[in-house]
Amino acid sequence: MIKAGIVGGTGYTGVELLRLLVRHEKVELTAITSRQEAGRAVSDYFPSLRGHTNLRFEAPEQASLSDCDVVFFATPHATAMHQVPALLDAGVRVIDLSADFRLKDAATWQQWYGEPHASPEHLAQAVYGLPEVNRTKLGDARLVACPGCYPTAVQLGFLPLLEEKLVDPGSLIADAKSGVSGAGRTLKLGSIFSEVSDSMAAYSVSGHRHLPEIRQGLAAAAGREIGLVFVPHLVPMNRGIHATLYAKLTRPGADLQQLFESRYRDEPFVDVLPSGEHPQTRSVRGANTCRLAVHRPQGGDTVVVLSVIDNLTKGASGQAVQCLNIMFGLPETTGLGASAVLP
Amino acid sequence: MIKAGIVGGTGYTGVELLRLLVRHEKVELTAITSRQEAGRAVSDYFPSLRGHTNLRFEAPEQASLSDCDVVFFATPHATAMHQVPALLDAGVRVIDLSADFRLKDAATWQQWYGEPHASPEHLAQAVYGLPEVNRTKLGDARLVACPGCYPTAVQLGFLPLLEEKLVDPGSLIADAKSGVSGAGRTLKLGSIFSEVSDSMAAYSVSGHRHLPEIRQGLAAAAGREIGLVFVPHLVPMNRGIHATLYAKLTRPGADLQQLFESRYRDEPFVDVLPSGEHPQTRSVRGANTCRLAVHRPQGGDTVVVLSVIDNLTKGASGQAVQCLNIMFGLPETTGLGASAVLP
Amino acid sequence: MIKAGIVGGTGYTGVELLRLLVRHEKVELTAITSRQEAGRAVSDYFPSLRGHTNLRFEAPEQASLSDCDVVFFATPHATAMHQVPALLDAGVRVIDLSADFRLKDAATWQQWYGEPHASPEHLAQAVYGLPEVNRTKLGDARLVACPGCYPTAVQLGFLPLLEEKLVDPGSLIADAKSGVSGAGRTLKLGSIFSEVSDSMAAYSVSGHRHLPEIRQGLAAAAGREIGLVFVPHLVPMNRGIHATLYAKLTRPGADLQQLFESRYRDEPFVDVLPSGEHPQTRSVRGANTCRLAVHRPQGGDTVVVLSVIDNLTKGASGQAVQCLNIMFGLPETTGLGASAVLP
Amino acid sequence: MIKAGIVGGTGYTGVELLRLLVRHEKVELTAITSRQEAGRAVSDYFPSLRGHTNLRFEAPEQASLSDCDVVFFATPHATAMHQVPALLDAGVRVIDLSADFRLKDAATWQQWYGEPHASPEHLAQAVYGLPEVNRTKLGDARLVACPGCYPTAVQLGFLPLLEEKLVDPGSLIADAKSGVSGAGRTLKLGSIFSEVSDSMAAYSVSGHRHLPEIRQGLAAAAGREIGLVFVPHLVPMNRGIHATLYAKLTRPGADLQQLFESRYRDEPFVDVLPSGEHPQTRSVRGANTCRLAVHRPQGGDTVVVLSVIDNLTKGASGQAVQCLNIMFGLPETTGLGASAVLP
Repeated sequence: MIKAGIVGGTGYTGVELLRLLVRHEKVELTAITSRQEAGRAVSDYFPSLRGHTNLRFEAPEQASLSDCDVVFFATPHATAMHQVPALLDAGVRVIDLSADFRLKDAATWQQWYGEPHASPEHLAQAVYGLPEVNRTKLGDARLVACPGCYPTAVQLGFLPLLEEKLVDPGSLIADAKSGVSGAGRTLKLGSIFSEVSDSMAAYSVSGHRHLPEIRQGLAAAAGREIGLVFVPHLVPMNRGIHATLYAKLTRPGADLQQLFESRYRDEPFVDVLPSGEHPQTRSVRGANTCRLAVHRPQGGDTVVVLSVIDNLTKGASGQAVQCLNIMFGLPETTGLGASAVLP
Repeated sequence: MIKAGIVGGTGYTGVELLRLLVRHEKVELTAITSRQEAGRAVSDYFPSLRGHTNLRFEAPEQASLSDCDVVFFATPHATAMHQVPALLDAGVRVIDLSADFRLKDAATWQQWYGEPHASPEHLAQAVYGLPEVNRTKLGDARLVACPGCYPTAVQLGFLPLLEEKLVDPGSLIADAKSGVSGAGRTLKLGSIFSEVSDSMAAYSVSGHRHLPEIRQGLAAAAGREIGLVFVPHLVPMNRGIHATLYAKLTRPGADLQQLFESRYRDEPFVDVLPSGEHPQTRSVRGANTCRLAVHRPQGGDTVVVLSVIDNLTKGASGQAVQCLNIMFGLPETTGLGASAVLP
Repeated sequence: MIKAGIVGGTGYTGVELLRLLVRHEKVELTAITSRQEAGRAVSDYFPSLRGHTNLRFEAPEQASLSDCDVVFFATPHATAMHQVPALLDAGVRVIDLSADFRLKDAATWQQWYGEPHASPEHLAQAVYGLPEVNRTKLGDARLVACPGCYPTAVQLGFLPLLEEKLVDPGSLIADAKSGVSGAGRTLKLGSIFSEVSDSMAAYSVSGHRHLPEIRQGLAAAAGREIGLVFVPHLVPMNRGIHATLYAKLTRPGADLQQLFESRYRDEPFVDVLPSGEHPQTRSVRGANTCRLAVHRPQGGDTVVVLSVIDNLTKGASGQAVQCLNIMFGLPETTGLGASAVLP
Repeated sequence: MIKAGIVGGTGYTGVELLRLLVRHEKVELTAITSRQEAGRAVSDYFPSLRGHTNLRFEAPEQASLSDCDVVFFATPHATAMHQVPALLDAGVRVIDLSADFRLKDAATWQQWYGEPHASPEHLAQAVYGLPEVNRTKLGDARLVACPGCYPTAVQLGFLPLLEEKLVDPGSLIADAKSGVSGAGRTLKLGSIFSEVSDSMAAYSVSGHRHLPEIRQGLAAAAGREIGLVFVPHLVPMNRGIHATLYAKLTRPGADLQQLFESRYRDEPFVDVLPSGEHPQTRSVRGANTCRLAVHRPQGGDTVVVLSVIDNLTKGASGQAVQCLNIMFGLPETTGLGASAVLP
């Protein structure tokens, strides 16, 4: 059994990790930390887990994380970058769900997160945890930086087009819509039910922290800089991201349906819908799947890709488990085989 | 492998059965019928199941249901009662999720469902599929009548009190709230999003079809007739039933917490919360669990039991799988081990 | 024009008051206070009011509240009781939407609110602002204590039965369901969208602060002590309270429909539905109406009353405006004539 | 008083018209038709209107519509085009909320609505009811074709840019999100609560019926053909449209904020937010307002306009009343002065 620990398990990515890992046949959860809830049973804090785990939260300094084979960070940004080096030194592999190791450039990180990066020397070593791009590298990774939720949905939708140079890389638009759990389990007035229900709005149009991450990934796929307008929106649903992606085709005659099906044929967690369909976010609720559909409205020169994921599963904790499976040589779908809960 | 068929798989209990059975390690789904969708791939009809099953809907008369070991009916009422006898004669065991075999008295059935029962001779033979009451009988059952969603939540909440004769059986009140999926996947104006969202209401206060079923079960537990006021409400959520139960205590000194814990100690799917807590329906979303809490407000002589289930899981398809496990001698939790999807 | 001020206008009852008062033809809003937002335009804080008011928030000590004819308190409890006496001394009439002056007994207030009452000498003077009970007293009132949202819905539903002594006053049960705006515009984890959406739960079963208020009002109607079990629930909707009320009939033969219609015939804001109907909370969304329906399920001896209001309108700010109209001799419906926004 | 009739008042635009017109000080509702509900009191059908109107539905052939000064059509498409000519001949002015007279070209209408237009000779005469474009023409109009909900939000957002030729008219993208009431009060599986709640999806990417209408309006503003990609999405909220609009700036130096403020300075129902803000759909819920914000992310050459309306108010019935006010020489805001119901 792989001994796994979780740092910061009281948020939504934390409880999603717990849901997945308590059922994972090859993983034994041995430690979970929370300063605030230290001593409390996890199943007392999350009654949905009653009967599923006997784990208790421990204070970070008490938890024997260095005895783990792998430690997940489900923390806000600027936490992992302080603690990861010691764990790596102790031989523990790390899967970081936060933003700390996603960007390769420390200056860019500082620009968007407002403080210097605490361990810039580890940025190069970190493997970006998008298996559909980095599967091979993940096998040997000591430190995995799991992609953000928007970046997962946007990159999986644009990748085939950019890799094959079928679109103008300066013309990309990502109009993305997220469920409210993406804002985290934290006290913000803007997350209150009566502030967001029966309403929707865009936010951070001037610049969202996922923008440089998406740019970095798409530039790598395109082999050059890309131009991207990224507009996130908050939608009154719990889970789910719907990214609607636009780009100018440079070769309008290409068979886009075939391109997408071919690119993702062997991917266990990317599903290309038949031509003409529209994926619903609920079709991936609680599942580690990205569903894509590709359209060319009115036969014009703009391609529209619809990309849906569950922000907490393929957009966070499910993808983290997928990375773990690859890192430890397990079948990639281990513990991730459930279909969506629908309705 | 147990060969299983489903009659009528296009509704919400149908897709929930599919979600559970495609992952059940001892069951092989061999047939599913739908007159309207005959020939269509199940995963085309329910895209959430893409990659999880290759089954196609068949017209009822084409499906080789009699080759199955067990057939589930996920049909509206008044369907199973016509088709079940032939299947039983063919040696197939039947788990009926509809209302057709729940009531023991054909006249009562006719009174509430508005037509004569088509196979009243099978009513006596049918085992009411509430494992917490009928586990032993279910082992040998040929025909199982799965309880309705309200009846499951209400009976599990009242049973300990009635069995121990701690309450006045003439004083029972069940104020029950249901998510909209309980109304089925059918075209009713009252199920339209804009009719039910951001609103709630009671319905059928003069008499709901689940009333005689609940009465029958509670009377059996009490060993006498009971008096019950049952008021169902529709609440703007997808899944979940919250039953708030009231009764007059005849022995106010009894240790109710201990009573409930003791009654359900060995039940894998009934969870009694610690004293003073309030279960949320989301804590059982997609899980086969009933969570209960028992209160005595202000130390008065009225006991209040809070009982939550997922109407589609413990209230329908999960309970049906639990019955199957018992009928076929499997560990009762096979295929039902997932915790709730939260948030 | 009546010069009106608002203390504490940044919450949901505050913005609802603003919505109603900016359109009230006889009221001129002259001051609104908020320490935190002092100096900020109200329409900047609440963009829904852009174009509807030029008012700015002022620090409490800056606002010339004593120049107002009437001041509304839309504050949490334990604020008004400190500030009201000075305003009354200055000749300003006060309408308090908080809990500070609702209970007649200072000791009871202290028991439920956890601190001594700061101006117990004003409790006797305060008129409880339920026009359907206290219309005459409201005409001369200097200090009005507006009822809570649950108490409004519950009292209007039980009043006819208790006044006519048709039910056992020791047998009352109020199973009440509230939209999330009832929890206020404050940072609580339990109000976060992802905590409450697609879920529901009871809360405070051991005792909610509205319990003594309801008891006080019902006892006055009954002319004796009453026994009440009150169970509030949180439901995933913005606005609305649905109270489902149960009592044992002592005279089952009484014509309950006629009783309710007669009791409320002249009330502009209480609407008794025809026999057999079920009110939806959305039918009063944004309206100052209480809709009632009375049922006797299966002709038994339990009466069931369904009572719906909008918690922010008839349950708070609309009722406050109704009180103002009475206090200042205006037609009672002034500024309150809009029907519900549906859907 | 203006005598007004409504044809087809049982849908959502119908009940919204009723809500607005029963309070309109210059309008007397004298007739409303519904074949199915003929004879039934409107307030029985829509309990939210109890106490607000005594009107009864009449069969179309019984209703004395020709005695009205103005008749609203709140019908599905392909109804008004059959009935309008006779009303016009009788001297009745018509405000059609359906799609029948929006397109100027009968062939285009046939292409998108699948049948020949029944009164193509009236298309030229019909005035497109967008007051921000056609105010003068509306004054004399006999037949007004009210814009669709998407077209209102999209056109108001793009107009200033196209009129001033600041963007490439071939590069327009409208990513639009609608609440479910936009789908109408009709029985479609896709409108069922459990199909759309806690989920979202795009639809009709290959071509939506509002596309030619938007194209027609934008081309008129631009003075040339335009290229538009229009992707509508269904979002789990009752009311509201959020259009996110993208275009390539041809003069990136232009002061876009000033442009929008100047264009709409005198418009009573268009509100341009301060620079950097993001409008929420709830800020216009139940109000006849369009709120706009204009952004240039990262100072690039793509302009992003955020445009929100209530699909039933400014997107349908409120706009119809605004047109009526103009047609009959009333102050344009008569009966439309309410601010949004928030939360």
